[in-house]
Amino acid sequence: MNNAKPITVHGKPVAGGAFPVICTPLVGRTRQAVLDELSAVLPKQPDVIEWRVDFFEGIGDAALVIETARAIKAAAPETPLLFTRRSTNEGGERIAIAEPAVVELYTRLCAARCVDLIDYELSNETPHRQRLRACSREAGIGLVLSYHNFQSTPDAPTLIAKFTAAEQAEADIAKVAVMPEGPEDVLTLLGATLHASRTLSIPLISMSMGPYGSLSRIIGWAYGSALTFAVGKGSSAPGQIPIDELRAALAISRRAVTGG
Amino acid sequence: MNNAKPITVHGKPVAGGAFPVICTPLVGRTRQAVLDELSAVLPKQPDVIEWRVDFFEGIGDAALVIETARAIKAAAPETPLLFTRRSTNEGGERIAIAEPAVVELYTRLCAARCVDLIDYELSNETPHRQRLRACSREAGIGLVLSYHNFQSTPDAPTLIAKFTAAEQAEADIAKVAVMPEGPEDVLTLLGATLHASRTLSIPLISMSMGPYGSLSRIIGWAYGSALTFAVGKGSSAPGQIPIDELRAALAISRRAVTGG
Repeated sequence: MNNAKPITVHGKPVAGGAFPVICTPLVGRTRQAVLDELSAVLPKQPDVIEWRVDFFEGIGDAALVIETARAIKAAAPETPLLFTRRSTNEGGERIAIAEPAVVELYTRLCAARCVDLIDYELSNETPHRQRLRACSREAGIGLVLSYHNFQSTPDAPTLIAKFTAAEQAEADIAKVAVMPEGPEDVLTLLGATLHASRTLSIPLISMSMGPYGSLSRIIGWAYGSALTFAVGKGSSAPGQIPIDELRAALAISRRAVTGG
Repeated sequence: MNNAKPITVHGKPVAGGAFPVICTPLVGRTRQAVLDELSAVLPKQPDVIEWRVDFFEGIGDAALVIETARAIKAAAPETPLLFTRRSTNEGGERIAIAEPAVVELYTRLCAARCVDLIDYELSNETPHRQRLRACSREAGIGLVLSYHNFQSTPDAPTLIAKFTAAEQAEADIAKVAVMPEGPEDVLTLLGATLHASRTLSIPLISMSMGPYGSLSRIIGWAYGSALTFAVGKGSSAPGQIPIDELRAALAISRRAVTGG
């Protein structure tokens, strides 16, 4: 058995404690594109929405970012909003601002309380991470500390160490996403997630990416991953499955495992 | 990548080379029950039908068994028929006849050419296995040599040794089915199957059983398992998924992995 911890937002389990919850990314380049994407995605009822702000051309304009986040929340008030700048080192888009400005942007978003969760890479400088830990906690916003590897899948001890480092850095949620070089690497990711779910006390999010990795998006919940990303309109990482298909496959796998 | 070999019958790939193929068991206790079950199952279009003759009260009457097998083939002439007596040691039902009579029954079935594949456990005595190898080959019937463990999941080298032993004993197909004691054992089964698919030249069938093991029935194909069992009307092992659900989940996982 795993020891699964559901994702909570403002002290309440997301989607009534569903395990896993389904998150769809917004990857529009403009405010209008983001809102159009949101309109297309909402009828598919994602449990969480992630705004990948590294895709957003206006990332350098903090007021526009805050206003756009508020517009997303206004359109989907009941759906937790995860705010993510994915760095280029970890698979994100090139952006026009440097890291201190990114941290400042996150800080202002937190102060404005217009998002519910933020994601920041574990690999960033410790003072930056600590500042975001402090400002997110102050605002009651959950902090996801994440590790991505788009080249390969490190061995299980290395993956477990990433989950553990996130907890030690006081993350509310630890995320690990890695690229498999063959189907066996998907097993490594699942095994490491299971191990971490038994030893750590925070919720985990994990996935193997790419074609074979997509299998982990369907069965990762059984190994302790509390959230799985699905394509609403546009995908944000390789191997994401359309939300309708992922929901159907999750329901079948859950029924098979739990009998319910 | 795995090195998947599809199941063939009479020299032709089953279901046009579908990977995996879906097999539903028949577990009726009487001729009429078996045929009723078949009628219920056929509209669901299984790729292979397994007749689990250890459930059949008439197992001691070889003529009745042959006649019933012929009736199954008459009702489903295009669907390969796998004939299996599962021993009690490996999870089967108690039967009224001893092993020599079982071997005699298989031999007569082969001579009558009324089935397409037979399954016999690797653990049986070598002379019995050799006799069934000879008579099935003589009749152009494929031989599945199988290993089942309903208590636990041996380690990967032990599982790989079972697949290898089946190939060395001249099986046409090697089957391994084991019970997980936790989600990690499902990973062990999948990893061992992948390894065997890369090193052996015959098609493989593998599954982890029980609730968590049901995940392997959905994704095992990506690790080299060429056939997955689904519930048509009655299940023959713990963790089997209804055929409609399994087919839907397979289609989603295959689309995710292959993009097609």
